[in-house]
Amino acid sequence: MPGVPPSRYAYLGPAGTFTEQALRQVPAAAKAELLPFAGVDLALDAVRDGDADAAMVPIENSVEGGVTSTLDALAAGEPLVVVREVLVPVTFVLAARAGTAVSGVTRVATHPHAVAQCRRWLAEHLPGATAVPATSTAAAAAGLAAGQAAGYDAAVCAPVAAQRYRLEVLASDIGDNPGAVTRFVLVARPSTPPPPTGADKTSLVAYLPHNHAGALLELLEQFATRGVDLTRIESRPIGDSLGQYCFSIDCSGHVADARVAEAVMGLRRVCPQVRYLGSYPRADAAPVQVRPGTTDASFADARAWLDRLLEGRPG
Amino acid sequence: MPGVPPSRYAYLGPAGTFTEQALRQVPAAAKAELLPFAGVDLALDAVRDGDADAAMVPIENSVEGGVTSTLDALAAGEPLVVVREVLVPVTFVLAARAGTAVSGVTRVATHPHAVAQCRRWLAEHLPGATAVPATSTAAAAAGLAAGQAAGYDAAVCAPVAAQRYRLEVLASDIGDNPGAVTRFVLVARPSTPPPPTGADKTSLVAYLPHNHAGALLELLEQFATRGVDLTRIESRPIGDSLGQYCFSIDCSGHVADARVAEAVMGLRRVCPQVRYLGSYPRADAAPVQVRPGTTDASFADARAWLDRLLEGRPG
Amino acid sequence: MPGVPPSRYAYLGPAGTFTEQALRQVPAAAKAELLPFAGVDLALDAVRDGDADAAMVPIENSVEGGVTSTLDALAAGEPLVVVREVLVPVTFVLAARAGTAVSGVTRVATHPHAVAQCRRWLAEHLPGATAVPATSTAAAAAGLAAGQAAGYDAAVCAPVAAQRYRLEVLASDIGDNPGAVTRFVLVARPSTPPPPTGADKTSLVAYLPHNHAGALLELLEQFATRGVDLTRIESRPIGDSLGQYCFSIDCSGHVADARVAEAVMGLRRVCPQVRYLGSYPRADAAPVQVRPGTTDASFADARAWLDRLLEGRPG
Amino acid sequence: MPGVPPSRYAYLGPAGTFTEQALRQVPAAAKAELLPFAGVDLALDAVRDGDADAAMVPIENSVEGGVTSTLDALAAGEPLVVVREVLVPVTFVLAARAGTAVSGVTRVATHPHAVAQCRRWLAEHLPGATAVPATSTAAAAAGLAAGQAAGYDAAVCAPVAAQRYRLEVLASDIGDNPGAVTRFVLVARPSTPPPPTGADKTSLVAYLPHNHAGALLELLEQFATRGVDLTRIESRPIGDSLGQYCFSIDCSGHVADARVAEAVMGLRRVCPQVRYLGSYPRADAAPVQVRPGTTDASFADARAWLDRLLEGRPG
Repeated sequence: MPGVPPSRYAYLGPAGTFTEQALRQVPAAAKAELLPFAGVDLALDAVRDGDADAAMVPIENSVEGGVTSTLDALAAGEPLVVVREVLVPVTFVLAARAGTAVSGVTRVATHPHAVAQCRRWLAEHLPGATAVPATSTAAAAAGLAAGQAAGYDAAVCAPVAAQRYRLEVLASDIGDNPGAVTRFVLVARPSTPPPPTGADKTSLVAYLPHNHAGALLELLEQFATRGVDLTRIESRPIGDSLGQYCFSIDCSGHVADARVAEAVMGLRRVCPQVRYLGSYPRADAAPVQVRPGTTDASFADARAWLDRLLEGRPG
Repeated sequence: MPGVPPSRYAYLGPAGTFTEQALRQVPAAAKAELLPFAGVDLALDAVRDGDADAAMVPIENSVEGGVTSTLDALAAGEPLVVVREVLVPVTFVLAARAGTAVSGVTRVATHPHAVAQCRRWLAEHLPGATAVPATSTAAAAAGLAAGQAAGYDAAVCAPVAAQRYRLEVLASDIGDNPGAVTRFVLVARPSTPPPPTGADKTSLVAYLPHNHAGALLELLEQFATRGVDLTRIESRPIGDSLGQYCFSIDCSGHVADARVAEAVMGLRRVCPQVRYLGSYPRADAAPVQVRPGTTDASFADARAWLDRLLEGRPG
Repeated sequence: MPGVPPSRYAYLGPAGTFTEQALRQVPAAAKAELLPFAGVDLALDAVRDGDADAAMVPIENSVEGGVTSTLDALAAGEPLVVVREVLVPVTFVLAARAGTAVSGVTRVATHPHAVAQCRRWLAEHLPGATAVPATSTAAAAAGLAAGQAAGYDAAVCAPVAAQRYRLEVLASDIGDNPGAVTRFVLVARPSTPPPPTGADKTSLVAYLPHNHAGALLELLEQFATRGVDLTRIESRPIGDSLGQYCFSIDCSGHVADARVAEAVMGLRRVCPQVRYLGSYPRADAAPVQVRPGTTDASFADARAWLDRLLEGRPG
Repeated sequence: MPGVPPSRYAYLGPAGTFTEQALRQVPAAAKAELLPFAGVDLALDAVRDGDADAAMVPIENSVEGGVTSTLDALAAGEPLVVVREVLVPVTFVLAARAGTAVSGVTRVATHPHAVAQCRRWLAEHLPGATAVPATSTAAAAAGLAAGQAAGYDAAVCAPVAAQRYRLEVLASDIGDNPGAVTRFVLVARPSTPPPPTGADKTSLVAYLPHNHAGALLELLEQFATRGVDLTRIESRPIGDSLGQYCFSIDCSGHVADARVAEAVMGLRRVCPQVRYLGSYPRADAAPVQVRPGTTDASFADARAWLDRLLEGRPG
């Protein structure tokens, strides 16, 4: 993705979701075409097919955990890479058509994840209301805007969706976790990674050897021996049978950092399959703490020392 | 739960789901009262509150991975323990009211997870159809049975739901993964674990020390040093901020096995928090492979040897 | 050895060695019978046979390393245990009969280890002199005292030997390493270990499984997992063939400390053979740094927690 | 040392020792000048100073363990490298001047190590005899040959020494361990290592970070992570104080093997000091068992894969 900025961005739609909010944080997206898709896999396929230059998709939520559809869609199919991460605070509102009172709400539509994140508020303020599942929080809002036949009185959605669909906000900040945040990734077709910044992450998927009890431990030691810290690790099932997993991993540092390079090459050697998913700047720009002996300079020194040994000049 | 068999079983409803199928595998459930609940948390709370004696809930699917609502509901609140696991093959049918033709289906209702698992079939056979989210596969079937106003023409559901709601099966085995299976657990209020069978699992949740890079490795070493294999490990977010996780773990063996006992005590010592979720027979009855030096006899021998040392009789 | 203090102490003789100096640091030895032996194995056998109550022998020197004859003699034969350690600064003098000048010395007798430790001084001050091997530094001194026929002019020995044999000190502090120190151990027949002091060591010998590449790593992990630090580890050959080793190990803490107990029981389980060689106070009385989660209280808490689980009261 | 074969070989003398026997196994030594030295350090210094092209010195004995003078002399001073290893079975004879009967022997001279290895035979056959220390087994034999004034009646030495000094062999194979063997190394000034043979060893000395409890474990993990097995590890004290060690290590494989190269570079990065002591063919020519994922081809594949990632072509 270096060079010309993308001109077409796919994202998990519809408009009015937190994903669109994430996309709004990308400066280049301001002048680009934004293409909503009904599923993460569809958005990613648009990139794979060349119908979009990049796709913004949610990958992890501080309350709900990993977004499995994204993890799985990145792990399979034509390779894609993450080029950027974006954090979006998750705040929910209860929205309805003008004139609706909270006391009159009997059916509330929203995405099941939003129900999970507003459970406490809903139990307290709308104890008798029925939850109506929607494909997204924005779809719930859109349904209300569309008219009478929605089959529900109110929607739990992002503030931006209430605004977009000209709904009235009956209550704000109704999420149970005030600090909830969702992490999004901007995904593109493979290209040279952006240059290391000193505050990077690398994502990959590693498959464990079958039936090898200590395999996960060995996988972690590939990182530990090179002083590379993991920031996220999630297991995902492989294929049809229980008990076979791959691991979706984020680690500190850039694949162009010597310690990360050696660790991922180690994975490549010991795992039946490894998929690289990109090195990119951390959204929080927190510099990676590099342990002594694991800097690029240390690796270069060790290599130079070895080269001298091989030339018969140890010391 | 030892002693008197449960007389009231909660489960993730409604009737006609795979969870009910799982419950049907429990002999004692045949004569018991079965209580469907609209959510895993509600079913578990029924057990906590004494309104049910046990609850059957899904915990892991071979395609979709861990059932996060179950993992999270077991990790918080009053302690509960798993007393049994049940495996159910996951097969989906396309069901409709009598007289519906596949070619006439334009809107298909089901649970989003079922959409994910039948994606390929749906794309091939109903490429133009819209997916309508339902709270469960059985609810989608029930909606059709209820009459005209469902807002959709067909449901993707379990065979048992089609049967229960007297729907016509338009297509069988439409799941993308023919061998897909879901693992359910029967959960009860804490009591003495069932006796070891030699083919047991132990479940627990372990929290990592904050900001400790090698913490996961140390956690795994608590198991490895005692020769205990993990059969499942999943990270779950803690609280509001990204980057803090606990791990939901299944390991081979029973907490009354010496090697497992020492490993979980090790976790208790090094982790800020550990929640024990039960020891119970494996559904597949596969005997645990116990490595030399980790049998109960080895532990007893080592203890006797140490006791002799402490009495001044080494050797 | 608790109860009545020993009345007969064997030691690596002859009188006038650093070993006798070590024995002088043991208060109870002041009134006891001191029995010099010509070899470490002989001194230890005297204890085994009941001819002595304890034996003082050197085990490690800060310059020369482990005293292999002691390591091997403790590793084989009837079990013995270390009950105390003593540190003795190693200072050498050049001693001769009265009237000898340094310039007149052409042959210098001493133990080969003393030659090694005074190499620099001897090269500088007696460059032309021949080193004559003696069975001990004290024997070299004794030979001079015995008269003309010694076959050498001077001895390198401990100050105490020069004094005992009424020799003249031609030069003091001639060792190359001013801070050199030898560690001695007082060895007795097995009995209840002395009570933990919070500043203890435990010694043992562990044999590795044959032909198991990662065996040493596993052995070390038995300690690391329980937070037990090693203070010394030395390999010793086993039997006749190269490539088979056992390890002589000192670790921090007392075998009655829960973390040490569990670690040594772990060794007992995974190693084909483990020999316990005693828990005893550190000579430097430096308190052991106990890591969080590895105190006796942590172990007791974990055990109580496990017991509650097994009784059906988790939490 | 590649290219022209050495023409002057230093060795630990005097003539007639096992070291000379080791040297006789080196074909090029047949036509070369053999230079005996009175100490390992002197033999090595002769190489350092250019007075010899290579030195044969003992490094390890199957009964006595590591030869500390060699380990220490290789660890300090100008760097030298091992270019070859040689194994010599250790067999001892009791030798005397013609006409001596075993029953008449009252004083037996030999090197202390030989006493240790013939202890059982001496105790049984010469229970009353005194052991007289000599600087080498050959020196003991030479002393007898020199005449009456030796101060002893018999020598324990190598068969070759009895032959050289025209002594009578009173008893053969008197060592306690019939299969005892000593490992010697041929040491030269640094040069390009001999090419890998698939059956090589690499020797090095690694210093641990001070006061770091897990340092040895980390050092071993540098090898384990790359699938490199250790064949020998010995601790040696550093400097003056107890408790500070370096480790003398032999590992399987050649420093030009990718897995060994990465492991020793890892040591270089994490240890305050590492000294490379050479890669050379195993005396037993036993091929190194290379684990899957650690062949040169695996390393090359991983590097090529990484290079593709960095060029934007993952997969």
